[in-house]
Amino acid sequence: MEIKVLKDILNANDQIAANNKKLLHDKGIFTINVMATPGAGKTSFIIETIRRLKGKLNVGVIEGDIASSIDSEIVSKEGVPVIQINTGGDCHLDASMISKALDNMPLHNINLLLIENVGNLVCPAGFALGEDLKLLISSTPEGDDKPIKYPFMFHVADIIIINKTDLLPYLKFNMESFIKTISSINNNIKIFPVSCTTRKGFDPWITWLMTQI
Amino acid sequence: MEIKVLKDILNANDQIAANNKKLLHDKGIFTINVMATPGAGKTSFIIETIRRLKGKLNVGVIEGDIASSIDSEIVSKEGVPVIQINTGGDCHLDASMISKALDNMPLHNINLLLIENVGNLVCPAGFALGEDLKLLISSTPEGDDKPIKYPFMFHVADIIIINKTDLLPYLKFNMESFIKTISSINNNIKIFPVSCTTRKGFDPWITWLMTQI
Repeated sequence: MEIKVLKDILNANDQIAANNKKLLHDKGIFTINVMATPGAGKTSFIIETIRRLKGKLNVGVIEGDIASSIDSEIVSKEGVPVIQINTGGDCHLDASMISKALDNMPLHNINLLLIENVGNLVCPAGFALGEDLKLLISSTPEGDDKPIKYPFMFHVADIIIINKTDLLPYLKFNMESFIKTISSINNNIKIFPVSCTTRKGFDPWITWLMTQI
Repeated sequence: MEIKVLKDILNANDQIAANNKKLLHDKGIFTINVMATPGAGKTSFIIETIRRLKGKLNVGVIEGDIASSIDSEIVSKEGVPVIQINTGGDCHLDASMISKALDNMPLHNINLLLIENVGNLVCPAGFALGEDLKLLISSTPEGDDKPIKYPFMFHVADIIIINKTDLLPYLKFNMESFIKTISSINNNIKIFPVSCTTRKGFDPWITWLMTQI
């Protein structure tokens, strides 16, 4: 009985996600669902991506947080449209939250929509939003064992951004073993190591992103 | 209707948590629910705490993970009883999982039970397990804005461990503002800055813990 209810919720979400995707494609908008644990650098990554795309693409951002509008205030300084979703207590965004946010987003003005999900390495993996790509940011201080402990998130992701590479000299983090583990879970994944602090590593990511849109 | 179902689940959980607590108190066991985002250092903190308590208290550990038994394998090297719970996809431990684990824990041999929850800064906050204290580990690379974005977790915690203080020289992290924000959410909270890498800061934590048991 409980399983049935859960199935219904997920099906309903998938239906709304499909509607979001159709709307976004009709408007010519490419959409990325940015997921990560709290503090992995989602907002910093989005900001650096916006800066690198200036003059190339018009970006819009949806910020998902349990509470506060800190992130949307920071991102809006980049001169792009931003919608803040506060989930209350919910641990992930869902398609119906995105549907409401899209009603308030100037869709005719953007080519790329970046959705920052709630910081959580578990729940967001199960909820489609209407995105073209799922991007997971995994930061080096979290440790190189995360793919083994949170396999579903690494399994559903299309792209892994390995952030905070500037901290590698101060950490026990085996990059080779980390990438090997990810590849064993998800063979098709694209991996980009970056540092949002030093801004290193963004060129390959931006070049690849431009080929996708 | 949905709210009612959720309420029933939470009430059922609270009931089982109360049973767990009674059983643990009857056996003279003090229990701490250790929560944090993935990679904040829960396992390292538990290991250093076990080492500091050697000869003072007998510790038992329950390890909660979505998948794998990496953490329980590491912790069992400390010579303490360890039970691994794999939640499958569940994003938090609940009281009934703990109840089953307690059936397999040598309760007559331990004075302190440390429960490592699933790495998640949202969902575990809502589920009592039967613990005496909720301990939240917040690591410096996550940033000093986390209490504002995940207020419920900081609200329910009795203790905050600020881990990875050894990385402070390489990060933008305002310790004063972080502690001030935590205090504004939760005035009664105890805060202990530590580094599991350099092992600094553990003396005040262990001294305080011994006064509680």
